[in-house]
Amino acid sequence: MTEPRYDVIAIGNAIVDVMAPCEDSLIQELGLTRGGMELVDADRADALYRAMGPAREISGGSAANTLAGLSALGARCAFIGQVADDQLGEVFAHDIRASGIDFDTPSRPGQPPTARCLIFVTPDGQRTMNTFLGASQFLAQDRLDEDAVAGGSILYLEGYLWDPEEPRAAMRRAIEAARAAGRKVAFTLSDPFVISRHGDDFRRLIDAGQIDILFANHLELAALTGTDDFQAGLDSLSPKVPVLVVTRGEHGASAIARGERADVAAEPVERVIDTTGAGDLFAAGFLFGHVRGESLERCLRLGAIAAAEIISHYGARPEADLQALVADKLG
Amino acid sequence: MTEPRYDVIAIGNAIVDVMAPCEDSLIQELGLTRGGMELVDADRADALYRAMGPAREISGGSAANTLAGLSALGARCAFIGQVADDQLGEVFAHDIRASGIDFDTPSRPGQPPTARCLIFVTPDGQRTMNTFLGASQFLAQDRLDEDAVAGGSILYLEGYLWDPEEPRAAMRRAIEAARAAGRKVAFTLSDPFVISRHGDDFRRLIDAGQIDILFANHLELAALTGTDDFQAGLDSLSPKVPVLVVTRGEHGASAIARGERADVAAEPVERVIDTTGAGDLFAAGFLFGHVRGESLERCLRLGAIAAAEIISHYGARPEADLQALVADKLG
Repeated sequence: MTEPRYDVIAIGNAIVDVMAPCEDSLIQELGLTRGGMELVDADRADALYRAMGPAREISGGSAANTLAGLSALGARCAFIGQVADDQLGEVFAHDIRASGIDFDTPSRPGQPPTARCLIFVTPDGQRTMNTFLGASQFLAQDRLDEDAVAGGSILYLEGYLWDPEEPRAAMRRAIEAARAAGRKVAFTLSDPFVISRHGDDFRRLIDAGQIDILFANHLELAALTGTDDFQAGLDSLSPKVPVLVVTRGEHGASAIARGERADVAAEPVERVIDTTGAGDLFAAGFLFGHVRGESLERCLRLGAIAAAEIISHYGARPEADLQALVADKLG
Repeated sequence: MTEPRYDVIAIGNAIVDVMAPCEDSLIQELGLTRGGMELVDADRADALYRAMGPAREISGGSAANTLAGLSALGARCAFIGQVADDQLGEVFAHDIRASGIDFDTPSRPGQPPTARCLIFVTPDGQRTMNTFLGASQFLAQDRLDEDAVAGGSILYLEGYLWDPEEPRAAMRRAIEAARAAGRKVAFTLSDPFVISRHGDDFRRLIDAGQIDILFANHLELAALTGTDDFQAGLDSLSPKVPVLVVTRGEHGASAIARGERADVAAEPVERVIDTTGAGDLFAAGFLFGHVRGESLERCLRLGAIAAAEIISHYGARPEADLQALVADKLG
């Protein structure tokens, strides 16, 4: 087994977030589900954009955000995802490369355009996401660089991308390539709606021992295990994955690894501005600790610190010096 | 003279700002002038973008920023400026319309793309701007809607746009249309480099009594009048314009109107994050007071409050509720 080139290589949606504050009333008027993520077509995206206030554009995408956090912490990372050959695609590619992450997936000519996520942020900092997947869903399995996948100590996959057919096939091949190379596979369940559509796939992967590190929030845990009881959910899932990490927003997070359990409180935040990317950055901190061989509790603490940074400002890419933050808080 | 439809109608560059924090050392490495604005061609823009860290995109443009402030304060506004038919053009158009500003200039098909300004923000909050003008410099004089111009109580023009030929001709025609309709013409000198290239034009306009309200900062005042002495500069320029407003960054601002002078200190700011748009928002506050018939001192205070808001966050479009801020500070 050769030395890995990357600590983490991820496959995910290549999305630019379009973010604006809004009042709670607008969420109702537009018929949105507060705090949720919905896939929208081009017409719905146009209608929502017209209803949105002045916005700002910041690169996003769940797994890409996680890599941005990992890279900021000092990990070596690579990203695989599909942008179109357009201005938002250039923005995404620039931002991820400027974060120190290798990104070699060629842009896709023609329509549809690069994916965007219209994010309405209510005064409590909650984000309501509406994703137009565009080019991102056309990540072709024959474009997958299996050598690159095999060169990552951990392959990280986002559940969101399980929905479209081509990327799902690419991810299945990537899992095989990673496991054949003796690497670990980490997976985030992303959202309850993904589980409602592909829960059987996920359960099969887990039962077959294909997932080494599984990330979920408490809602996704409930959706996957079919129980609202947090402890019962943990008990049923944890024997099937070597490392299980479950976040619970302001109630902290828990992890179970081969029978050992650790829990952390949420890191205090002066004011929650925008929760977009909280789970993504929690995963970043946890994975950073994991690749460095840290204790389970310290991995969770790293996750909590990275998540606290991201929710204290707009956008799901870190702004503060994460390494300095960690040094300050963990020594 | 018919009742004006708009408090302020502005002609300006239609720009999306691409902003990233950077260390002071990068400004030197890239050979940039700290705090300045430079026009760059496509190749230089690409090179600077490659050197820039992860960025965010926020609509900008000097006069457009001023209108966004005016609209947020409650003024009725319209904007004239040229975007291309591309994604950044859509972003600009969305943001200005979502700010409640009428914007009817059709987008321009084909190359070049929509203007962007690469803004490096150093830890002290200073911004160093590099503008690729793209489509913005092709605002065609024959596209100018003279009826709309005549329908604004004040026509506001940015000096930046005096540089390219077509928009300069459009602005000259707009000045004539506004004056023929008995409206006021406000002009911002924008930057010392513009004065170095077009100072003679500006002095001729001023001497001919074409400018009713003139905005400058102390550096532009010096460049236009040829003296570094602030008082001497004011003394030489103020007799030639009915209202002269000169900002001096953290040292406050002064205005002279028909012999009456008022001065204000800068509004205290907890922490300066990004000075982009400080002058633009000062002009917004001042003009808002002016169209409401407020006292010279109160106009300056409104300018100082709007400028303080804009420098306390990234981007040159207001984020806080400016009306609430003003009510809180001025009653």
